[in-house]
Amino acid sequence: MLVQGTPTRTIWPVLDQGPRRVAIIDQTRLPHEFVTRELADLADAAEAIAVMRVRGAPLIGATAAYGLALAADRDASDSALAGAANRLIATRPTAVNLRWAVERLLARLDDLPEGRRPEAAWAEAAALCAEDVAQNRAIGAHGLALIRAAGGGRAEPVNILTHCNAGWLATVDWGTALAPIFAAREAGVAVHVWVDETRPRNQGASLTAWELNQAGIPHTVIADNAGGHLMRQGRVDLCIVGTDRTAANGDVANKIGTYLKALAARDNGVPFYVAAPGPSIDFTLADGTAIPIEERDADEVAYIAGLADDGRLLSVRLPPLGSPCANPAFDVTPARLVSGLITERGVCAANREALAHLYPERT
Amino acid sequence: MLVQGTPTRTIWPVLDQGPRRVAIIDQTRLPHEFVTRELADLADAAEAIAVMRVRGAPLIGATAAYGLALAADRDASDSALAGAANRLIATRPTAVNLRWAVERLLARLDDLPEGRRPEAAWAEAAALCAEDVAQNRAIGAHGLALIRAAGGGRAEPVNILTHCNAGWLATVDWGTALAPIFAAREAGVAVHVWVDETRPRNQGASLTAWELNQAGIPHTVIADNAGGHLMRQGRVDLCIVGTDRTAANGDVANKIGTYLKALAARDNGVPFYVAAPGPSIDFTLADGTAIPIEERDADEVAYIAGLADDGRLLSVRLPPLGSPCANPAFDVTPARLVSGLITERGVCAANREALAHLYPERT
Repeated sequence: MLVQGTPTRTIWPVLDQGPRRVAIIDQTRLPHEFVTRELADLADAAEAIAVMRVRGAPLIGATAAYGLALAADRDASDSALAGAANRLIATRPTAVNLRWAVERLLARLDDLPEGRRPEAAWAEAAALCAEDVAQNRAIGAHGLALIRAAGGGRAEPVNILTHCNAGWLATVDWGTALAPIFAAREAGVAVHVWVDETRPRNQGASLTAWELNQAGIPHTVIADNAGGHLMRQGRVDLCIVGTDRTAANGDVANKIGTYLKALAARDNGVPFYVAAPGPSIDFTLADGTAIPIEERDADEVAYIAGLADDGRLLSVRLPPLGSPCANPAFDVTPARLVSGLITERGVCAANREALAHLYPERT
Repeated sequence: MLVQGTPTRTIWPVLDQGPRRVAIIDQTRLPHEFVTRELADLADAAEAIAVMRVRGAPLIGATAAYGLALAADRDASDSALAGAANRLIATRPTAVNLRWAVERLLARLDDLPEGRRPEAAWAEAAALCAEDVAQNRAIGAHGLALIRAAGGGRAEPVNILTHCNAGWLATVDWGTALAPIFAAREAGVAVHVWVDETRPRNQGASLTAWELNQAGIPHTVIADNAGGHLMRQGRVDLCIVGTDRTAANGDVANKIGTYLKALAARDNGVPFYVAAPGPSIDFTLADGTAIPIEERDADEVAYIAGLADDGRLLSVRLPPLGSPCANPAFDVTPARLVSGLITERGVCAANREALAHLYPERT
């Protein structure tokens, strides 16, 4: 996607004469500063995932893949790669793409002699990124049909509510939940996006709003509390969210608060779709109850970062000192509340049979 | 309630030799600074309500009553009082207590000669405050029975989720939704409170957490997004919230986001109670669809205030410049999602018949 008019991805190999490195957008600085950052080794990659310089299930997977490639440049032995894999997988427990990407690279390298592993790792990471982009383009095309249907042919913009950031910043490019919205823009279908702020890390207010701003797509930032009210007023035609891990029965783990919006959508007859690329579907989990829910640092609730009047990025504390906070980062939306899953292979019902039909090779 | 050990109310007449004034706690400075402020005239009272130095339906009513008393000290003519009443009522459209308190004072003064009106206004405002405190004590006693029932006699703390601040800071004293919690503490019933942060103005993280901190009641601040997840995990025994206006059929207007928690409570079999003192029930409204929903300044969503590292209270901006925000301040929870209303006259079902039975003189 374009950043100030320049085509940009969220992660890319640095092509110069020095040692191989990877560059990322440091998403902790957005929306107020656009800063890129280089990852020189495994530790850099693990840190970038853990502190959420990169986030979003697909981008976490891509970063882990490059992290393993960086590790292979130093030491491509079986034991070194296994240690690197474990270190990367431990950074974020909920997103399944992380493990998927790491295991895919390990499988690719397993039969190769050590000397050929580094090249193969970089090539596989690049292939994984290319597939992510292609998947997201396909999700965009399938989701566009849902947006057209929700609009019912009228001229006014289709009002779409989204939670958190499942835009291009959450992927290598194009995004998952926002891919249909970018596709709508390309197709000349008018949309307006309700952007959930998405406490505690505000990925909606900071990242989704920034993306839509850059793309010139009409949008309005709202408190997470407001979506139910807007649905009761008939001001939401469609919800589209992303997913960090979807179980084989269609239960969806996504950013905390997704479940509340799914309940409101059901209560008001608003379609609730989840953009779920294949790698985010975990066919080894019968349902969502077994998805591990990451409990993040309570300070992410207590402190909030933003732009001060003097142009500095600052954190301020909300609750009184002495009031503890809790920070479960994801929730599980039961499949019964999901109108459908938008995959790269098409839109399917959120149930075991439909998913198995779409991905026969994985069940 | 106690503030650093000193019994304190949220509003009180200043008793000295000077012109009559009213003192309030400036709640925009909490939880990081405890500051009181004097209201010397009608303009001060209207400003305090509009910018939310005082907030919460019962306290808004009490402040409006004193605002009218301050106005009567300057000019107690019919036309002056009518003008003052209109100015006060216009400050916040959703809370019905505001209009109720103003009309009560006007009715009290209507038949009196101008010369006797100021004294009568101050006396009526004081009486209204005394009734608020008595009502809230009664709500506390009735709600305590619900907390005991939710605990089922077990020794572990009863987990109660609340949204926004309907504590003593929202009233003259004791609070509405928190009154049962304070009563539980007095009765030796162990409770733990999940405190919704309550974006965009964070009254949970700032005011409810501060109250519970002062009272030494165990609590945990959570993002508004987290409550549904906690209910799915069985970690919430009971929800108790306040109300700004309840319609004759039991539909409840309360802080934006209340409806989402009511949906989650219903989906998980968690009792969802609303503490509704008589003055917050509007028997002139058949249902909640006619309750006006205040749309507040979008900057309340875009900017967030808190304590910086250097000890200053600062606002920081979350979304990028150029991203518009919307700020509906209340939503309406349909009566079908409400387990019961906790009034000063007892707990009743959220329907027309039960409310009419409890308040026969008002229907």
